[in-house]
This record gives sequence, structure tokens and C-alpha cells, in this order.
Amino acid sequence: MTATTPSDPTALPLEQKVRLLSGQDFWSTPAVAEAGLSSVVLTDGPHGVRRQQGEFDQIGLLESVPATCFPPAVAVGSSWDPEVAERIGAAVGVEARAIGVPVVLGPGVNIKRSPLCGRNFEYYSEDPLLAGVLGAAHVRGQQGEGVGASVKHFAANNQETQRMQVSADVDERTLREVYLPAFERVVTESRPATVMCAYNKVNGVYASQHRWLLTEVLREEWGFRGAVVSDWGAVDDRVAALEAGLDLQMPGDSGAGNALVVEAVRAGVLDEAVVDRSVRRVAALAGLVAEPTAGFDVEAHHALARELAAGCAVLLKNDGGTLPLTAGTRITVVGEFARTPRFQGGGSSHVNATRVDDALTALQGAVEVTFAPGFTLDGSGDAAALREEAVAAARGAEVTVVFAGLAEADESEGFDRTTLDLPAGQVDLIRAVAAVSLRTVVVLSSGSVVSLEGWHDDVDAVLAGFLLGQAGGGALADLLTGAVDPSGRLAETIPLRLQDTPSYLTFPGEQGHARYGEGVMVGYRHYETAEQPVRYPFGHGLSYTSFATTDLQVRTRGADGATATVTVTNTGERAGRHVVQVYVATAAGPVRRPARELRAFTKVSLAAGESATVAFELDRRAFAYWDVREHDWVVAPGEYSVQIGASAADVLDQRTVTLAGDDLVPELTLQSSVAEWFAHPVAGPQLLAGFVAAMPDGAAEMHEGMLQMIGSMPMRRFAADFGSAVPAAELDRLMAAARAAR
Amino acid sequence: MTATTPSDPTALPLEQKVRLLSGQDFWSTPAVAEAGLSSVVLTDGPHGVRRQQGEFDQIGLLESVPATCFPPAVAVGSSWDPEVAERIGAAVGVEARAIGVPVVLGPGVNIKRSPLCGRNFEYYSEDPLLAGVLGAAHVRGQQGEGVGASVKHFAANNQETQRMQVSADVDERTLREVYLPAFERVVTESRPATVMCAYNKVNGVYASQHRWLLTEVLREEWGFRGAVVSDWGAVDDRVAALEAGLDLQMPGDSGAGNALVVEAVRAGVLDEAVVDRSVRRVAALAGLVAEPTAGFDVEAHHALARELAAGCAVLLKNDGGTLPLTAGTRITVVGEFARTPRFQGGGSSHVNATRVDDALTALQGAVEVTFAPGFTLDGSGDAAALREEAVAAARGAEVTVVFAGLAEADESEGFDRTTLDLPAGQVDLIRAVAAVSLRTVVVLSSGSVVSLEGWHDDVDAVLAGFLLGQAGGGALADLLTGAVDPSGRLAETIPLRLQDTPSYLTFPGEQGHARYGEGVMVGYRHYETAEQPVRYPFGHGLSYTSFATTDLQVRTRGADGATATVTVTNTGERAGRHVVQVYVATAAGPVRRPARELRAFTKVSLAAGESATVAFELDRRAFAYWDVREHDWVVAPGEYSVQIGASAADVLDQRTVTLAGDDLVPELTLQSSVAEWFAHPVAGPQLLAGFVAAMPDGAAEMHEGMLQMIGSMPMRRFAADFGSAVPAAELDRLMAAARAAR
Repeated sequence: MTATTPSDPTALPLEQKVRLLSGQDFWSTPAVAEAGLSSVVLTDGPHGVRRQQGEFDQIGLLESVPATCFPPAVAVGSSWDPEVAERIGAAVGVEARAIGVPVVLGPGVNIKRSPLCGRNFEYYSEDPLLAGVLGAAHVRGQQGEGVGASVKHFAANNQETQRMQVSADVDERTLREVYLPAFERVVTESRPATVMCAYNKVNGVYASQHRWLLTEVLREEWGFRGAVVSDWGAVDDRVAALEAGLDLQMPGDSGAGNALVVEAVRAGVLDEAVVDRSVRRVAALAGLVAEPTAGFDVEAHHALARELAAGCAVLLKNDGGTLPLTAGTRITVVGEFARTPRFQGGGSSHVNATRVDDALTALQGAVEVTFAPGFTLDGSGDAAALREEAVAAARGAEVTVVFAGLAEADESEGFDRTTLDLPAGQVDLIRAVAAVSLRTVVVLSSGSVVSLEGWHDDVDAVLAGFLLGQAGGGALADLLTGAVDPSGRLAETIPLRLQDTPSYLTFPGEQGHARYGEGVMVGYRHYETAEQPVRYPFGHGLSYTSFATTDLQVRTRGADGATATVTVTNTGERAGRHVVQVYVATAAGPVRRPARELRAFTKVSLAAGESATVAFELDRRAFAYWDVREHDWVVAPGEYSVQIGASAADVLDQRTVTLAGDDLVPELTLQSSVAEWFAHPVAGPQLLAGFVAAMPDGAAEMHEGMLQMIGSMPMRRFAADFGSAVPAAELDRLMAAARAAR
Repeated sequence: MTATTPSDPTALPLEQKVRLLSGQDFWSTPAVAEAGLSSVVLTDGPHGVRRQQGEFDQIGLLESVPATCFPPAVAVGSSWDPEVAERIGAAVGVEARAIGVPVVLGPGVNIKRSPLCGRNFEYYSEDPLLAGVLGAAHVRGQQGEGVGASVKHFAANNQETQRMQVSADVDERTLREVYLPAFERVVTESRPATVMCAYNKVNGVYASQHRWLLTEVLREEWGFRGAVVSDWGAVDDRVAALEAGLDLQMPGDSGAGNALVVEAVRAGVLDEAVVDRSVRRVAALAGLVAEPTAGFDVEAHHALARELAAGCAVLLKNDGGTLPLTAGTRITVVGEFARTPRFQGGGSSHVNATRVDDALTALQGAVEVTFAPGFTLDGSGDAAALREEAVAAARGAEVTVVFAGLAEADESEGFDRTTLDLPAGQVDLIRAVAAVSLRTVVVLSSGSVVSLEGWHDDVDAVLAGFLLGQAGGGALADLLTGAVDPSGRLAETIPLRLQDTPSYLTFPGEQGHARYGEGVMVGYRHYETAEQPVRYPFGHGLSYTSFATTDLQVRTRGADGATATVTVTNTGERAGRHVVQVYVATAAGPVRRPARELRAFTKVSLAAGESATVAFELDRRAFAYWDVREHDWVVAPGEYSVQIGASAADVLDQRTVTLAGDDLVPELTLQSSVAEWFAHPVAGPQLLAGFVAAMPDGAAEMHEGMLQMIGSMPMRRFAADFGSAVPAAELDRLMAAARAAR
């Protein structure tokens, strides 16, 4: 036994060290007094601290310590505002410090591959840039308060069905362009203390033991220095996971896995250096442990939750200026959600809110309100009678506001939805109310997109609140009455039909596999590229004021970058906030590009009449695609359109620039095609010259249709037929020349 | 050196034997006098013999011996009539015998994954049953005349772009349910002399050296006994190909590959038995060699080509009984294709037709005709003047028939189309003519689907001829004048937009890979399942008479079969032929099933007023899906709807039957999920009983939401948490019990 020093945990005996790599219980790591290491508590987040009071319970049955429930990610996504994410992160950090929690798990930056995913309310967007920017801001805020974050679920955890077994079968380009970039941005920009691996398999290998993900990409490429934590129960083969780069298994398994690790080291099949590496990473987490602070300002945080929530809701439709409600209007409010708000999702992220605002009470403070519940949340009661009562209350009302949405039982961690529809009773209610009210507004509360079909055209305005946290009721009242200008924009497309969603026929997969057949064409990338009409596109959202974007200027910066500037003017009569969305479109390169992709955005506050000029630096990643042959990002030479969009579907202005791109000399092998050989910048001209010299007739044929028939033939076979014209030694020489030029 | 016996080619010296396994030139195998083996000529087909007169030329520059050009596969597919395919096969066989060709290559039974595939004209359908039945009939007819066939291109050769390199990345279920069944049917029903491997890779491995395809599936499962021939130039690694099951390399490579094979045998890396196996298979082909017959009846075969072609064209639309044309009507014919017919595709299947009928001449024999070309095939000339001339001719005509379509340069082997559109000039012409003519008929000639959008609603009738062979002109006249009743039905969907096609975003792939992301949802399987509107669905086609289907009866036959009978009545006033289409629909089983799938069909000839009762035996394959866990076909217990469809989109009648299905006891492992364990018919009840006994509270939790959260957890991890309730020994016992019950 070597002597232990308190400061070097790797000097501990093997069993002691290994103990550190697995939870001592459901929520904490073991303390190691000999190394001076405290136990580290990790609890669920990220839109509020869920510090359970009991010992074992993953599913929220036990009470947790009261904490502020801020808007969940689905709403933060719609804010398009990293400040919202950062302030939530900071506030959660403050509360965690008060509650005594050094690591709060989250944020989740998985991409919304399908609107049916049961955990979409915990994710930001269908777009990786938006998800990454918001996730990075959340981590920055939270860790700024000294509380570790855990960006999750790494990676390709895009469904709940069979989540602990299903293999997300995703091609390399799609992983790189869609499912990994949000993680990459969070890791490289905000350096989270931990990364949480996903439950699912990626291309057949559990994420918990996926060396390529956990070590090659995460650490070697992105430079991650923290600890990789398993999702709770995600470790399958403990030794394999450790070797792959999984540092901390959670929760503990009473030492069963630790024993296997010790045995593997003793048997010489696992290098003790692997254990030491993880021990150092986990031990570093103990540095986050601090004495609990004196508490947090519950009222101030509630007010903050209300302020931030108001920046998240999306005004989808507002015909005839129905909103904002004006003082003195006779308002009827319909819908149980008005007094029993739906404000967060079910499952591990469920927060025991310090208090809950309802919109009905908040509205009653601003306007005169008649209320009828219209329906019950669990579908009990006499639906027809409830509807009739609501219709009677709405009849002749100047404005009826219907609070519709999904109950918590309709969507949660653990299962996926099978429909986008609102409960049929609510659709009937909306239509019946709209038929008798002078004007009708629908306010939606749901953790993910619901269909607007069947009633959208019957109503005058739609405000999508998604889930706004514990102060959402007040925030909705602020928006409805115009106390706050709506500034949310859709972070995910609202399709016309579930059948139109790109993963419709492959979600959630079958027999253990989910084939990501749509590739990079996720969300708006699909709808815009396939020219598929939608109800409301990604990026859409209205305001009570109006904005103009003018003077778009784009200039290239080197071979693979550009700077865009645009002037935004508030052309309306009240202050408001506008999201400037910058998309890039191109047909350059050898891969099918989406019609356009979001490459930059910013949210601008402007007083009435005010203008601001905003600038965007578009780096090479804004123009690059992932090349599976180069296994790298490549900027193809060619034309790129830099576009300002009111949404992904509505381009307001654009400028085309030509980029020199990467001076890529392709690799040549005998398996490269005849067409690739002849088109090669180095080898092509020499090959052709030799070919023409050896068989002028053959060369003529090459240009008259033969390339069409055999252009894709590997050079190896072509050379066999034309041996005299393309001798093997010459091919060797040309391959070497091509290699040398790379 | 061992003694050779003429009858045993494997007794030849190694070099001699190996010589047999590669072409002696572009079109024939070497003769081996010592073994009494003649040289075997293999030439292109399959809708006519293409016996080239020159030595080296793959792309049709050299003249070939005149032969009858029968309707290509695209038209035969639309016949839905195996008799058409069989009679073509037989006639081609007769001609091949006369020309001295023992093996005619074809038919092609690849599935039309995208309407853009340049070689679709050589393939039958988007549906594997239809393709397989027709391909099997062709082989039956051709081989009945003593001429070997070569079903091709095995497998997943669904595009021309990068065809010699691209990897068709297809999941196992999709291969089994969509891309392989047509080959399976041809091989098992009609025992073709040869199978031709495809150029492309399948899941990363060249089809020419794909052991799973060429040996395990083709021979071990399907019982193929003939020779596998390479597509011309498809062999990459000769030794690997031979080992994988590729018998004959075509064309020859001047012995280069043979030398490698000899070397491999001598070096002990290739078993000589592998050579002998292929030698026996190739030698057997020499048995097909016969003295040329005295010739064939050119006129009779031309008449046959006309008769068969008339059974292929599809009447898509016929408003107000515009067709048939009645004698005495003043007809204007517009379109160069009327006098210069487009009747076959480009590339290796191009036949030097014995004569060519044009529709204009044929029509002039039946009705009074004014003609204007309207456009030129190569786009030369003054388009506006040609259009104006045509409009002048059409003005006031009782009926104008516009012959539109694609020129041979627009579609061919070797490249894929990039659009479904007709040339813009033709669309303009159709609209201009339709504006001035009393009625307008459009006749389409193209090797694959063209869009009808932009003009469909302007015209009264549309007759899709696809490519009808050398007598197509006469056949079209027969159909237009009503001499023959149209009886073709679409073998492929006509979509509204290219963007609606299921492979739109993944065809033809990129960087060496085509990802078959749509899986089994190809053609109508996609449109019907995703409820995507189309212009005309698979199976659609009109007649000049009308049919009723009544008295559908379906009864089960055993656990996994059914018999359907239905009565068809010609309810119109003239004789006609009707295609009865039987689809099966189900939601049974663990996989996503297409909305419906064609499972049987027959074409019935009925005099006016006549009825016939037809019966269909639906075997287990009509109800089965491919289970990737069992690696086998499985009939899931459940309800199945047997449907009679006027098309894939139009169900006329249906009956639901319940099938006991396969009594499948799933395998259980420690990686099987908790939900799978508890639901297992053998292990589930015992596991639950033990669990309840050990921890009654835990069992209650299992039923109250825990399964939702952790149902997909592998049993291995669950057992680690609940060790006392589910001891390892008990799991071992239950796994054994489950295995024993399988």
C-alpha cells in the first residue's frame, strides 16, 4: 500500500479510488476523507433545483425542497434570447447554493427530431445553433454562481420510447451537422463541469460506453476537461464504460460495478491509469462543494421568472389587432388552464415550485373577467355541460380568451406522444366559443407543439405559451394586456399534419432501432428543402409593434468567412424586441444542403422609431458542411446567399457572396472513380494527356458519352481495360502527386 | 497434370478451368474443346435481342443484328399481365435462337425507388410483387424456348448516378420486404440460368463480392443453381468475388483476373473447390448453346409486339368519353412523337428494331387527320413558330391529340433525371392547343413517370404509353380509336411533385452513399401511409367499359393464410380487361406497416355483361413482415384487412380476418428490456410472481408508472437494483425456459 496524500486521490488504494467513480446513493458521490474530498450532490434541473428530500425515488413521488420553477427549455428556446437562458442559469445557481447543491443537472440540448418526443419540453429547439447558444448561456449563468452544470443527454437522445435500449442509427454527417453542434458549442464556449451521457445507443453502441463520443469527440476534439456522468441507470458494461470515457456512474449500484472495475485492473485487462484519469475528474467536482448560503429571495426570483417568461411566449396570430386586450373590454376567460396553469413537464425535472401564478387571477387585476372552466384536466365531468356553460359565458363577449393545452399526463419524460392533437373536447370548445364570441383568442400551454388545425381559422389570435414556469400565469396576463410586447419566436416548426414531419415514418423506430432516415433534414431544414407547407415556420412570431430590416451588407472575410450588417428599425408606435435571424443558403459542395440554415441571430430592444445596426460575424462553420471523406468540416468553393429571415420560410433580404472556400485536393486511390481521376486538379490533366497520347480515339470516346456510362467505374477496373494508356506505375505516380498536394 | 475427361471440366488443369470463369471477349465465354464446351454468347435484352456485330462497344455505337423491339419493362409493368411478359420472353427466345444467342440478359426487376432513376424504363414497378410476377413470367417464356435468362441487377441497383461505386445503404427489413422479393420470386419460380450482380455496393460491399447476397441468400436460402454473372465491368476484387459466389466475370480482362485466381489457389489462399464450383456452373451454360434456327417470322413478331403493347398503355383520364375517337371525327394530331415515335430507352438494352410503326400513319388509316409537329425532338427550330402552326391546326378541331414525352436523350442508362417535368416547350404547346381545340387528348411517351402538373386540368384525356416498343405507334392508334380497350394500370405512382417522392432528399445520395432512409416506404407504400396526395396512384387505370367487383369473401387458412374470392362483372357495353388488385393492411406486429401492400392480382377478360369469380390464395408471405430479431419472416397474431383496390388509394371493398399468426416466443437475454421480460409469455408471469413475493411495494410501483420510466431498461441493470427480487440464478432459469419454448 502506498502512502496517501490528501491532495492526490489517485494515490489512494485501488478500492478507495474506484469507490469515487460511482454514487454512494441516488444523488451523491462518496466522500473520501483520506483525500479531503467531500461528497458531491448532483440533482435534477435545469429550470429549477429539484433537491429530493427522500433517499430513493426517481419519478417524483417524493417531495423536493421548494425552489423557483423558471420557464423550461421549450419556452427558453422560444425566447431566442441567451440572456434569458443565462439569467435562469444564474438564478438556479443561486438557489442551488442556498439549498446546498454543487451540481445541477442540465441543460438538455438534444434536438427536437420529432414533435412527439415526450421530453421535448426539456429541449430548446429543432435547430442546433439556437439550442447551443441557449445551452451555453445557461451553463455560463449557472457556473458563474459556482454551481456545476451537466449538459445532456449526450448524444442523439431524441425519443423516450425504448430510451434505454434503442439505437439511434444516424449517419456521420447528420451527427456532426445536427445532433452534436449544440453540445460542441456548450462544451467549447462554457466549459460545463460535467457532461451527462444519454441512455440510448448511438449506431449500436450505448452512449455510456461510446468511446468515439465520450473521448475522441468530446475530449480530444472539443477539449472537454470535466467529468462525464452517466444518465441515471445508463451504464451497462461498467468496465467498458470507464474505458470509453464515462467517469462517474450514477446512481450507485451498491458497489457491484466497482468490484468489476477492481477485478479488471487486478486481472490486467483494465489499465489503472484509466481509473486514475476518472478519479481525478470526479475528485475535481468536490471543489464545487460549498457551505450553503443563507437562502435566496423567493419573491425576487418569482418576479424574475415572470419577467423572463414574458420574453418566451410566441404570438402566432393576431388578426385585426385583437391583442392586446384593452382596459374596459368585457373579457370572458374559458379553460381550466387559466386557473390551474400547466407550467412545467413531468419526470425528473419536476420542480416543487415556491408558488404558482394563474393567468385568471392576474387578468382579473387588469380587466373585467367572466370565467368558465370549459373542461377538466383529466377529462372527468360532463364535457357537454362544461362546454355549454363556457359558450354561454362567451356569447357576445367582446373577446373570449380560451386557455387550451395539454395536461401533464399527456406528455412527460418516459413516453412519447402519438398525436399532435389537442384533446378533442378542447377543439370542440374552441370552435363553439369562437362561433359566439365577437373575437376569440387561444392561449396554448403545452410542452411541445400541438396542432392548430381544425380551429386555427376560426379564431382571431393565438398566443403559444408552451410551458412558462411558475410565474407563467402572470406573464401571459402581461402579454395579453400589452404590459409586455410579445417577442418570442418559434424554436420549432408547427406543421400542418403529423404526417408532414420528416421522421413521421421512422419515429420512434422498431425492434431496437430508430433509423434517422431524414438525415440532416430535420425541422425547417426538411420543410424548406422539400417545399412542404407548414402552419407556422421556425422563427415565426409577431409583436405588437413592427420592425423593418434594411441596408443588409455582406462582405467576405478571407476564404471562408463573412461579416453581415443590417439595420433594424422599430417602425411601430411602442417599444418592442425583435429577433434578427441570419440564414445561409448554398448549393455548393458535393452534399445535399438544406434550403437554408440558421447561422446567426440576435435579439434587439428598440423604442418606437428607434434604429440599430447589428453586425454578425459568420465564421467558416457558418458555411461548412461535414465531409465524410475528409472526416472534417469543409467550406466548398462557390456562392453563398446570406439571408435575413422573418422566419425560416420568409426571406426578407439576401446578398450573395462568393467564397474561395477550402483549397481541397481530393485523395485519389484505385477505388476512386474514373470521373474523379479525370476531374482531379493535380492528376486529372496529366492523366488525360497521357491517355490522349496513348489512344487518341479512346480519348474522344471519353468525351462523347463514355464518361456517362462508366464515369463511376473505379480506376482500378478502368486501368485494367486501358492498361497501355494508363499504366500502373503512372497511376502510382499520380496518386503520390495528389497526396503530396493535400 | 491429371487426365481430362470431356465431361468433367473440373478435371482440367487449373489455368484452363479458371479461363472458363471470365469472358474471352466482350460478349462470350471461352470454348474449352478438351471439355467439349462451346463458347457461350451472352447479349443484352430483355425486350429484344441486341446482338452486336462489332467486337468492343458497350454503348450502342455499333450496329446490332435486327430484332423485334418488344415493349420494354416499363410498359410490361403497366400491363399487370404475366402473359404479356411471358409472351415477350418466348418471342425473344425464338429470336435469340435464330440469331444464335444462348443467353439473353434480363429481365431487370429492380424496384423504382425514385422516378428519377435513368434506368427505370428497364424495370417493371415500384412494387416487388408486381415486378417479381412479371419477371418470373418473362424468364419462363424465354427459357421455355431454350434460351437462358439473367435476372438483374442483383441487388439494390436503383440509380445510375455513381452506379459503379455508390453504396446502397439499406436496412435488413427493407432489403427483405422491398428490394429482394422480386429476385426471390424469379429465382424460386422460374429458375433462371443466370443471375447478374449489380454494379453498386450494398451496405458498403460491392454486390459482385457480396457473399451474403450471392451465396447465403441467393443459393442457400432461395436454392439458386445457375451461374452468377457480373454486370459488365462490375468485378472489383476478382478473388474476393469468386469466393463470395460470383461465377463468371464479364467482359474478359485479357486474363489479368484469371492470373490472380490461379495465383491465389497456388498460394493456398483460395480453395480450388471454389474454382471447381464455379467452373461447373459456367460449364453448364454451354448446354444452352444450339445451332441457330432458320430465322423468325418478322411480321408475326411485329404483330405480336403491337398486340402486347396495346395491353400496356394506361388510360389515366377520359373526361366526357373523349376517347375512343369515333370514325368521322375531324382529328388534329400534334407532336413530333406521332411520326417519330419514342419507343425504347437508351443504353445497353437498345434494340435495332426490324421496323417501326408510327402512330400518325396508323391513325391516318382509321380517321381523318391533320398533323403539325409542334416541336422538335432536340429542341432545335423555331419553337414559337412550330407551336403556332400546331395551334392553328388545332383551332376548332373536334379532338386534338398531342403526342408529348421525353426524347431518348432525356433519359438513358448511365444517368438519372433531375426533374419530372416535360420539356417546357411541350407544356406550353399542350396548353396552347387545349385552349383552342374542342377537346384535347395527350399521349405520353417516356421511359418513366413525367409530371402532369401545369396542364393536366386543361386537357380531356391522357393516355400514358410509356415506351411501347417498335409497334407502339400502331398500338396507340388501336387504343385511341377503340379497336382495343385500354387495360393497363399504373405500376408506379404519378406524384404531384418531385418533392413528394419518398427519396427526394436522399436520391441519388452523396459522397459514395445513398441512404435508403425511407425504408420500406417506397412508392405507394409511402404515399398511402403518409396520406400524401398524388396525381394518380399506383394501380390506377381506366377502360372504355366499366367493371364492378362484388361478393368479396375472405376465409382464413390455418394460422397464417387466407383465401379471397371476388366476383368481377363487366358492367359496360363492350368487352374489356380488368385488373383485380388485392391488398393487405394491418397494424399487427412490432414494426411500422405500410398502409396497404399489394399481395395478389390477376387480369380478367370479360365480354360485356359477363361475370367471373376469381380466387386468390394468400400465403403467409402475404401477411408477414421481416423480423430483424428473428432474421426471418413473421406473421404477427392480429387482424388483417384484405382489400380489393381500384388502386392503392381507392379501396372498393374489404374484409377483416384474424390470424393466429406465429406462436413466437421471443428470445430473452439480460439485454432484453424490463418491459420485454415482464411481457414474455413464458418468463413474464413467473418473474412477476417472484417479484411480487419479494417486494410487494416494488411490484405496485411497477404498475404505477415505473414501467413507463424504466420499461426499456435492460434486465441486467434492473436486476442490479432489485437483486433480491430478481436473483441472477432465477434469471438464468427463466432465460433457459424461454429458449426451450422457442
